[in-house]
Amino acid sequence: MPHIALNSAEPGIRGLLRYRPQTAAPLSELTEVLLRGPSTLTRGERELIAAYVSALNDCRYCASSHTACAAAQLPGGMTLVEQVHADPGTAPVGAKMKALLAIASAVRDSGRAVTTEQVAAAKAAGATDMEIHDTVLIAAAFCMFNRYVDGLATTAPDDPALYAAGAQRLITQGYLAPPADPGREG
Amino acid sequence: MPHIALNSAEPGIRGLLRYRPQTAAPLSELTEVLLRGPSTLTRGERELIAAYVSALNDCRYCASSHTACAAAQLPGGMTLVEQVHADPGTAPVGAKMKALLAIASAVRDSGRAVTTEQVAAAKAAGATDMEIHDTVLIAAAFCMFNRYVDGLATTAPDDPALYAAGAQRLITQGYLAPPADPGREG
Repeated sequence: MPHIALNSAEPGIRGLLRYRPQTAAPLSELTEVLLRGPSTLTRGERELIAAYVSALNDCRYCASSHTACAAAQLPGGMTLVEQVHADPGTAPVGAKMKALLAIASAVRDSGRAVTTEQVAAAKAAGATDMEIHDTVLIAAAFCMFNRYVDGLATTAPDDPALYAAGAQRLITQGYLAPPADPGREG
Repeated sequence: MPHIALNSAEPGIRGLLRYRPQTAAPLSELTEVLLRGPSTLTRGERELIAAYVSALNDCRYCASSHTACAAAQLPGGMTLVEQVHADPGTAPVGAKMKALLAIASAVRDSGRAVTTEQVAAAKAAGATDMEIHDTVLIAAAFCMFNRYVDGLATTAPDDPALYAAGAQRLITQGYLAPPADPGREG
């Protein structure tokens, strides 16, 4: 049960966005720009970073939601995303993505944990400064979202089909669309 | 030296906001709503939560900047803010603020670290649901900002007078104002 009385039964961040529209607006816009705006990283790659950090933070709602979004947009599908969750070092992603995931993992620990060597490795693998910037900010933003969602003890559905349906809605409508009617889907 | 080539010499988050205007807009709006928008928590109290979390995360730029903002807006000034940094449990702040700072500290560790008992203590001390919500989101947001600022190895001035001047600018102009000319003040 959430720590505070929300004004809907919506799970995870959706209940929080509905509760506080003044903060929902910039939070949704940030997510839209980072995960779906113009970028040389694909939408699937950016969702993968979000899913990976959320799983490291053990945030079930965010990890399930962004895992579903990544799986639906990456050629390797759910198999690939699960391999990344298990070990990005051996997962079948390219050297650049491996290097960016390593930076994301360091950011998750602390901003001060990102090393010059990690950044150099990403650049050597072809990452641009903007890709490194966005990786750091995506990882940092999910350190916020994960804490927001779990810090208020929001609910998270169990059924993977609900997250898959939610992912389809996010992929077609984006993060700025008004939330669906309460209780319709995860 | 920052990990990436920024387009200005501005320190801390200011250099990052100038580098990526598309993410600067929602990040600035989020900060303005959380720290200066309508709330039953004073602006000084909200800056104190931001400063406290930033200091726990050892983010020198953010801690110095928001410490200056809190000190300038709280009746107890810098002495009070330094007492909170040293130990919020014994600092001369009210029971509600103590309870909210304890929640903020838990959020900093992990969203899952916030306990029902901590939330109950805050409510018993008079905190509203919205105040608890905003405390969790401020703490979570600074877990993002701190990682963003340090994850890209931005610079932080040493001179406290620069942060005091920056605080005066933020207090009069807010977080939505366009940044000052590069290099003018911290």
